[in-house]
Order: sequence, then structure tokens, then C-alpha cells
Amino acid sequence: MHKYAAYVTELIGTFFLVLTVGASVLTGSPLAPLAIGAALMVMVYAGGHISGGHYNPSVTMGVLLRRRIEVADAVAYWVAQIIGGVLGAAVAYWVVNPRGVAMLSLSGRAWLAAALVEALFTFALAYVMLNVATSSSNPNNSFYGLAIGFTVTAGIVAVGRISGGMFNPAVVAGALVMGLLPWYTAALYLVVQLLAGAVAGVVFLALNPDEVQSRPRVEEAAR
Amino acid sequence: MHKYAAYVTELIGTFFLVLTVGASVLTGSPLAPLAIGAALMVMVYAGGHISGGHYNPSVTMGVLLRRRIEVADAVAYWVAQIIGGVLGAAVAYWVVNPRGVAMLSLSGRAWLAAALVEALFTFALAYVMLNVATSSSNPNNSFYGLAIGFTVTAGIVAVGRISGGMFNPAVVAGALVMGLLPWYTAALYLVVQLLAGAVAGVVFLALNPDEVQSRPRVEEAAR
Amino acid sequence: MHKYAAYVTELIGTFFLVLTVGASVLTGSPLAPLAIGAALMVMVYAGGHISGGHYNPSVTMGVLLRRRIEVADAVAYWVAQIIGGVLGAAVAYWVVNPRGVAMLSLSGRAWLAAALVEALFTFALAYVMLNVATSSSNPNNSFYGLAIGFTVTAGIVAVGRISGGMFNPAVVAGALVMGLLPWYTAALYLVVQLLAGAVAGVVFLALNPDEVQSRPRVEEAAR
Amino acid sequence: MHKYAAYVTELIGTFFLVLTVGASVLTGSPLAPLAIGAALMVMVYAGGHISGGHYNPSVTMGVLLRRRIEVADAVAYWVAQIIGGVLGAAVAYWVVNPRGVAMLSLSGRAWLAAALVEALFTFALAYVMLNVATSSSNPNNSFYGLAIGFTVTAGIVAVGRISGGMFNPAVVAGALVMGLLPWYTAALYLVVQLLAGAVAGVVFLALNPDEVQSRPRVEEAAR
Repeated sequence: MHKYAAYVTELIGTFFLVLTVGASVLTGSPLAPLAIGAALMVMVYAGGHISGGHYNPSVTMGVLLRRRIEVADAVAYWVAQIIGGVLGAAVAYWVVNPRGVAMLSLSGRAWLAAALVEALFTFALAYVMLNVATSSSNPNNSFYGLAIGFTVTAGIVAVGRISGGMFNPAVVAGALVMGLLPWYTAALYLVVQLLAGAVAGVVFLALNPDEVQSRPRVEEAAR
Repeated sequence: MHKYAAYVTELIGTFFLVLTVGASVLTGSPLAPLAIGAALMVMVYAGGHISGGHYNPSVTMGVLLRRRIEVADAVAYWVAQIIGGVLGAAVAYWVVNPRGVAMLSLSGRAWLAAALVEALFTFALAYVMLNVATSSSNPNNSFYGLAIGFTVTAGIVAVGRISGGMFNPAVVAGALVMGLLPWYTAALYLVVQLLAGAVAGVVFLALNPDEVQSRPRVEEAAR
Repeated sequence: MHKYAAYVTELIGTFFLVLTVGASVLTGSPLAPLAIGAALMVMVYAGGHISGGHYNPSVTMGVLLRRRIEVADAVAYWVAQIIGGVLGAAVAYWVVNPRGVAMLSLSGRAWLAAALVEALFTFALAYVMLNVATSSSNPNNSFYGLAIGFTVTAGIVAVGRISGGMFNPAVVAGALVMGLLPWYTAALYLVVQLLAGAVAGVVFLALNPDEVQSRPRVEEAAR
Repeated sequence: MHKYAAYVTELIGTFFLVLTVGASVLTGSPLAPLAIGAALMVMVYAGGHISGGHYNPSVTMGVLLRRRIEVADAVAYWVAQIIGGVLGAAVAYWVVNPRGVAMLSLSGRAWLAAALVEALFTFALAYVMLNVATSSSNPNNSFYGLAIGFTVTAGIVAVGRISGGMFNPAVVAGALVMGLLPWYTAALYLVVQLLAGAVAGVVFLALNPDEVQSRPRVEEAAR
């Protein structure tokens, strides 16, 4: 029973994250990077005690490599995150009702640069999350949501004009639904983002050798 | 005696929240979404230990459904919140002294879209508040005000251009006083916002089954 | 000896607060409200354990009425705050080297409106500070600086275009030095700001009757 | 072994800090000051428990004077920070691929003013860091990263148009690599920034006489 609550929490949080991404991008709000980081932050704080507050398949990948979630749960998280992201994007599109959207068209060097910054900031996001929310050196802290959310804000401001600033396969799925990305760029982002999450899991264990252990606990993944 | 302090605290906090909404919107400040979220955040931190820091009838509705406040206190909170909101709006209007205000005119699909996003982000606000400020899994945390305030910031940036970004019947009352909303839109917002708060209370209990209990305590509602 | 550290801390913190106000206003930075609130926040966190982190004569007035500082220390704090503010303004003026500054010219209704919003947000600032940093209900919290700093951010965004958004006699002294305010407006602001701090002290005690006690302790004023 | 983890953590954190500086400045993002402060904040939270989260040779200088790090470790930190900064700048330059960059050309009075504000805000940054992250009066707080990061945000908004708002020799190294600064200005900044960090260490000990002790501990430097 408790596990279903975690899956629903992941769906709700990813829904509001991608709804915020979609609506603020489609309406051209200049404070979109702040809003998107804030949406992630508040959902991490709200749902952290239930699901760990991932809302991002790459983060779940990092938590899996760091061995704080079991494979079956990780798969369920991925499904919930993608469903939440697609629903959030659909609602954003419906409520904004844009006359048209500008698809991100990249090729050659710009395409590689976009993939590189997506990989780098997705790594940063998972690296920050693993350190602030799963390290035994930071018990009962109150900053984990702030750190996770504002990693995304920093990344969107820094490289949003290069790649769109997604750092999250669920956001990529939503962007695909809204027509903001061509399928081949979405596929490239997906691959590099999942790899980046995995690398973050390995780097976390290398830098925190005392954390190597095998007890996966869904309900403690955020603390 | 202690209860009157809670009611006065709700009035003060809602006054400053709606004063900030009114003055920053009427003067067209580009950082209004940050200011409004910040005003809510600081009042939640300032008054949380006295009243729970609701400042929003929909949040009080969620807390009522989640059974952490008694009906009589909830009604007193609602009265204090509406008085605070109307006073804040009146002061904002007097000090800005605008030559005219642009009323939000919506109809058809846009009107429904506005109601939908008001419902969604009011749900998000109450859902976040119940999890961060009333869950026994998050005792003595320092992030509750940050999470609550920045839910509003995220929502205004995301959907402010669609619905005005209110998420709070006391703000709706203030907007009505300032002439920013027609009465029928205010009525629609009021209904969907109160429903959204109620749904958040039910969802909270469903996702946190260990929290089902019946001890309503005004003075602990925020922690 | 310990007391001199507190006075120096007040001087340093107010210096950086008013330097930030002066430089960001004189260079016209659009994010000035965020920077000013952030400067106050970081100095509150940095110096809170030494001096209580007031950096504002109105806040010190509120703490005096709430009986957590002795009169002699309050006077020394006021002197340190005014010196820090004047120095900060002088450095800001020197480094920006503006060709001219626009003095805030207000009269009649607009002058009264400015005084009203200065009174209201100075009250809010002292009210928030007393609750988050001196209440025994909020021991060892990590949010006190965030709440205090962002009250100023909210106030500047909301009413900065009406009054300049100062809420602090040390900032008024700095604005006077930089030529941003005529002397009669500065005098009016000074009076209403100090009154607002005093009212906040009284309101705090009325809403927190358990806090009425007479032990003034400089070194605990911030916690 | 543990020490190498600290050096790598410093390199990773400084890399992302300077990548964020470079990319947001080269793409002209209006929210760059927020993003840069956020990048520092999140890396401080992520790496604080491993390396202390300096990411800035001036901060390391202050920690050295305050005697919480040994000379050999400080030198290793400096090397890691400069490497991280140069790499971050190189990646930022490659991904943005600017057609040209505007070098900051200052002379005479403006050059001195720039050096002064670099000195002042670098002092503020190290002063804040030493108080929030190394004082025994602030144990186990959750605000240290917020305070450190937002000192940089405040400084960039306030004096970014005067000096570029760097406050960090690793950022200066990155700016040199990207062609944003002439070598003689970089050299001047480097000197005043390191001096400012040293002065902050001395001021910290003067204002916190109980903290004078000689146990340098890398692994506790952040708490």
C-alpha cells in the first residue's frame, strides 16, 4: 500500500513540474527559470517523505545506481514520472492554447553542444540530489529541496538558450508532446540524461565511500 | 485568549499578502510573482507558531478536511482572512491610486481554462502546505514557509497570464474590491478554490494513511 | 568585550546592506529588490549569533519594546547602524559616480501614501523579525534570515515605486547622503519607521503573551 | 583517500560555478545573478560535507587564516579550484560559441572603484561563509549554503556593472580564459580578492574570540 502512495506522489509532483514548465514557457514568462526551480523545490519538500521526491527518471537512475531504490520500484517510478509529465504537458498546452510553438531546431555543433549541457546539468542535478537527500552526512536537513530546485533554476538560466534546459526525461517527454522538440533531439537528450544520472550515482559512491551499502529503502530515499 | 491571537494573526498575514498582491500588480512590478510568494512565505514563518499560518480559506478548508482544525475555528479563520484581504486590497488601491484598472475579462474556453488552473494550483498549494506543515514525517523542519510561498510564485509565473494567478479566496475578495475581476469570475474561482482545498485534504489523508486521526489543534496546525 | 563585537557586527552588516541598496539603485539594476533582501538575509545569518542581526534602528526599537535588549545597547546599536549606513551610502556613491540622481519628490496625498506604506512594511519587517528570531516557539530554526530578508524584497517590489521602499532609518540616512530624499521626507520616514518598530514590539507581546519577560540579553537577541 | 574526495569535490563545484557564470554571461541572461548565486549555493550544499564547499581561493584563504584547514590542503584546494574554473570557462565558451566577447576595459578611477568593490564583496563572501559554516555558534544549521550563495547574488546585482562582480579568483581565471578581462585587471582582482579573504579570516577571529583554536580539520570545515 505504501508503495502505491509513492508512485502517486511521483505522478503528482512530475505533473506539476511539467505543467509549470509548459505553461511558463508557452506564455513566455521571463521568470520561468525561477518558477520551474520553485515547482521542483516545493514538490520535493511536499513529497519527499513519501516517495523521495525524484520527479525525474535520471534522478531515479542515480538513486538506483547508488542502491537506495529497488529495480521494480525504479521502473514504477519511471512510468509514473512519464505519465505525470505527459499529462502536465497536455494540460499546459490546452490551457495556454498557443497559436503555434517554436520547435527547437538544432544541428551539427549546436546539437552536440545542447547534448553536452543537458548531460552536464542533469549530472549536476542528480549529484546534488544524491548528496543532499541521500547522504548520511546530511541527516534531517531542511535545505534538500532548495538545493535540488535551484540546480534546475541555475541550469535553465545558464544553458536554457542552448538546449532548452530540460535535464529530465519527463520534461523531454512533455516537450515532445507540446511540439517543442523534434523526436531525434528528444531521443538524444533521453540517452545522455539517463547516462548522466547513472554517472552521478557512481561519482557519489566514489566520493562518499562510507555510503556504499545495499539496503534499498523507497521510503527513506529522500532523507 | 490564545484563539483570538490566532485570528488576529490570520488577519495580519492575509492583510500583508493581499496588500503585496494589490500594490505590486497595480504598479506593474515585473517581480510581482516573487514578491507575492515572499510575502506569503514570511507571514507563514512569522505567524505559523500562533495560527498555523494559513492566510487562505482554501488552505483552511484542506486543514479542516485533514482534521487539524475545528469547524468553529475554521469559520473564524475564514472571516479573519476575508477581512484581512479586503483591507489589504483597499489600502493597496488607496496608496497606488491608479487611473484605472484592467479587469480580467474571460469567456468560453478561456474562462474554463482559468478555472482549471486556479483549481490545479490551489490544490498544489494546499497539498504542499498539508505535507510540509502538518505531516508528522516532517517535524521541526525549517522549509515549510519556503515551500508554501514558492508554490504561489511558481503558479503565478506559470498561469498568471491565464487566470490572474490567485489560488486563494481572500485574494479573490481583494481583487473584487480593486475591480480586477468581474463578480461571476470571482464566484467561479471561489467555488473551485474551496473544492481544490478540500480535495487536497482528502488526497493528503489517502497518501499519508498514518496521519488519519481526530485531534484538531489550532495551535499545532502549522507544525 | 563581547558587546563591542556586537556593535561592530551591526556596523558591518548595515554597511553592506546600504552599499547594496545604494549601488543597485544608482546603477538601476532590475533585480535590486532581490539583491537588497538577499544582502539583509546574508548579514542576518552571518551576524545573528553575535549581535542578533538587526541592522535597522526600527528593528532595534521593536526588540527594545519586546525587552530583549537594554537601552544602552540599543543606543549603541543605533549609532553603529547609522554610521554603517552612511558609510555604505558614501562608498556606493563614490564607486557608481553617477552624473546625477533623481530625488524622490512627493507632496500631498502621495507623500502621505509613502509614509503609510513605509510604516506598514517597517511594521511587517519588525513583526516578522520578532516572531522568527526572538520567539521561544521557534528555537534553533534555520529560516529566520530568509524570512527577514524577503520581507524587504516583498516590500520593495510592492511599494518601492510609491515610497522608495526603505523600511529602515539607516537606509533613510544613506538615501539622504546620496541625495535620493529631501530632508523633510527623510524626517517623516524616520518618525513613522521608529513608531512602526515600537508598535511591532507591542503587537508581538500581545500576540505572544507567554513571551512577556524582562531578561534582556544582547547575545540571544537573534534566537 | 578522503582528502582526494575533497579535492575532486572542489573541482566539480568550481567547474559548475564557473560554467554557470560563463554561460549565463555569454548568453546575456537577465537572471544571471540569481543563477550564479544558486549554482554556488547548490554546490555548497552538495559538497559541504566532503570538502567544506569553498569553490573559491579567497574563501580558502579565509579558512586558512581562521585555522580550519592546513596549508598543504589549502594549496591543493587552490589548484583544484583553478582547474575547475578554467575547465568551466572553456566549456561555457565552447557551448555558447560567441561571435565575440566584450572585454571589461577600465582605467583610472573606474579601475580603482572596481578593485574596491571586488575587495568589499569578496570580504563579505568570506565573512559570511566563516560565520555561517565554521562558527560553533551555528551548528547543524540548514542556511549556510543559502547565505553563501546569495551573498554573491547580492554583490553581482549591486556592483556587477562596476567590476563584473566576480569575488573569486577562480572566476577571474575563467574570465581571463574567456577573454572577458585584460590580464592587468585580472591580476589586480586576484590580489585584492586574496587579501579580502585573509582580512575576513582575521575579522572573524576578532569578532568571535571563542573560536580561536588550532585544530585544522578539512572534513569539518563546512560545519
